Amino acid sequence: MGAASFSFQVHVTESHCAARRGAISLSRGTVETPAFMPVGTQGTVKGLTVDMIRATGAQMVLGNTYHLALRPGAEVVEAHGGLQAFMGWDGPILTDSGGFQVFSLAQMTKVSEEAVEFRSHIDGRLFELSPERAIQIQEQLGSDIAMVLDHVVALPNDLETIRDASERSIRWAERCQDAASGQVDQVQFAIVQGGLDHELRRQCATELAKLDFAGYAIGGLSVGEEPADMYRILAVTCPVLPETSPRYLMGVGRPEDILEAVRQGVDLFDCVMPTRNGRNALAFTDQGPLRLRNKRHALDRRPLQEGCCCLACRHSRGYLRHLFLAKEMLGPILVSIHNLTYYQKMLSEARAAIEEDCFLSFFDRKMEGWQASREADAE
Amino acid sequence: MGAASFSFQVHVTESHCAARRGAISLSRGTVETPAFMPVGTQGTVKGLTVDMIRATGAQMVLGNTYHLALRPGAEVVEAHGGLQAFMGWDGPILTDSGGFQVFSLAQMTKVSEEAVEFRSHIDGRLFELSPERAIQIQEQLGSDIAMVLDHVVALPNDLETIRDASERSIRWAERCQDAASGQVDQVQFAIVQGGLDHELRRQCATELAKLDFAGYAIGGLSVGEEPADMYRILAVTCPVLPETSPRYLMGVGRPEDILEAVRQGVDLFDCVMPTRNGRNALAFTDQGPLRLRNKRHALDRRPLQEGCCCLACRHSRGYLRHLFLAKEMLGPILVSIHNLTYYQKMLSEARAAIEEDCFLSFFDRKMEGWQASREADAE
Repeated sequence: MGAASFSFQVHVTESHCAARRGAISLSRGTVETPAFMPVGTQGTVKGLTVDMIRATGAQMVLGNTYHLALRPGAEVVEAHGGLQAFMGWDGPILTDSGGFQVFSLAQMTKVSEEAVEFRSHIDGRLFELSPERAIQIQEQLGSDIAMVLDHVVALPNDLETIRDASERSIRWAERCQDAASGQVDQVQFAIVQGGLDHELRRQCATELAKLDFAGYAIGGLSVGEEPADMYRILAVTCPVLPETSPRYLMGVGRPEDILEAVRQGVDLFDCVMPTRNGRNALAFTDQGPLRLRNKRHALDRRPLQEGCCCLACRHSRGYLRHLFLAKEMLGPILVSIHNLTYYQKMLSEARAAIEEDCFLSFFDRKMEGWQASREADAE
Repeated sequence: MGAASFSFQVHVTESHCAARRGAISLSRGTVETPAFMPVGTQGTVKGLTVDMIRATGAQMVLGNTYHLALRPGAEVVEAHGGLQAFMGWDGPILTDSGGFQVFSLAQMTKVSEEAVEFRSHIDGRLFELSPERAIQIQEQLGSDIAMVLDHVVALPNDLETIRDASERSIRWAERCQDAASGQVDQVQFAIVQGGLDHELRRQCATELAKLDFAGYAIGGLSVGEEPADMYRILAVTCPVLPETSPRYLMGVGRPEDILEAVRQGVDLFDCVMPTRNGRNALAFTDQGPLRLRNKRHALDRRPLQEGCCCLACRHSRGYLRHLFLAKEMLGPILVSIHNLTYYQKMLSEARAAIEEDCFLSFFDRKMEGWQASREADAE
């Protein structure tokens, strides 16, 4: 089995920028790129049934290895037939390696060349995650795309620490590749590290590209740095990555960040922003974000976004505001649905624009709408 | 307008008991009886979209006047076109009068013959609710069926207090009738009070029956009394109520209580039990309730109930358990859907059994299944 059922085609590349329109084919379905994956951290996209996820337009979801390994445990998910069967999602799933969470959520994290040792943020239990274990867990979860274990460091940081982590990430990527059992229909994506340093990023991308992974992710971004820094790193990294493989910008981000990354040739995204912000009463629209707890929405009978066909937009802004003030679950549910629908529609429009070789004017139009808003941004 | 678009037909009455099969016709839809209404306290059945409510089989939902009057306010709901438009539910709605909540949830409640004064449980604001105001609010909410304001007392209580409240409830019912503007398509149901005293219940029902309401509710039950006491009160009250009007047992209850009340000739029910218990990981099944946090469900790949076509039953018990342990919203959502579907299916089966004149054997069969369970009951 192995990589047999994976393929990536680039249909069109823009003539005015690096944006490209393609498709990732997997045995469980096709993902039209550029694509956005909703985040299903604990085996569920928070508040949405699988039918609702599908209705937003999502074709692939992300599962978090760290969370699932801690609870309910990879063995439990495996006993239920893997993550797809467990959560009832019939499309492809990408799992991260747990690296990012181990370095951000877990406690008392200790890194050695062999593995990273940490304590669960839930109950303090001691765990060890090695590259081999990260792949074993992801094989138990049965995801279509597994991510290699990477060593993530906080930014800003001194160059030696970043270099050390970046070089370890390359060695760990190789060990992940060797650890694949060949028994499951799963491919691996490597992750480029290197902080905000151009040279380290280029080196890391160049070394990983030699290893012939199915896809390449850009990690360690969206950790508090300025957008301009992120864009700069994309500009030095994307050109070094193989043109024939999908490029995945992990954990990013705001609508404008996603479109900027698409412009630079990124194919795949995930972010908690649409769901986390949705749960917190912030709705994305073409006129910028709406903060639904604001009193000015109380009597507003308009939907969040004219022309949006999501479940939330069958209701008025006034009703949605009421749900949040009354602490009703339906508020977070509906605005999460709206935001995910908004992201999917934005990517769908981006794909159409690339096909017509007019991505840049599409991008400008979107930015104008968002910037016209007087409301605070989505951060 | 007024009562013009309301009618109630009894199609069949059982030959072995008082169970009856009928229909309430309203301009916004027909409610097949006996019927169960899910509770949409704050303009939402907690965690369910209106499509999900409809998919459970519900034909009418209940809205709570007390909660809606406090937040967002009856004027806000009215400005949105009434409760149906506000929550996006296209079927009939029954609103309670707020009486029960004023006497159970509110603070510093003071009753006079004129009105009841209380402080909001949300922010301590002072409110006054008179029979006239209760009807005015319900007309603003635009429900199809309004309930009269009643004086509810805690049980057990001394006979004089119960008599006083019961007699005031009759006078308030008359004032509610007089308060109807005649400008909205809304009918009123009266509420029988009288505690656990046979004579008071009979008197109250007899007096209210003379007032020619569209329907009659039995209130002040399911407040902690023994099931046998509730059944006893139903037995003395139901025969006094007009045969040609729907009978509504408010706030009840457990599946076995509902079937017992159907046996005695009750047509309409509402209760938070399926949703509240669902949010708390308790699922109703024909083999008795399942407590989903229990470890024994961890590897169980069976659905909650074989043959159930609800969204929850597309998943395994093990997955649902995981959602509750991981504190994921989807757990409460799915098990609320399951429980509401379970209640609706039970009522649908009860209606079919009455049509075939075999309600009692249906009732016995259900009770056998529930009692076979070793798990604790749904209380």
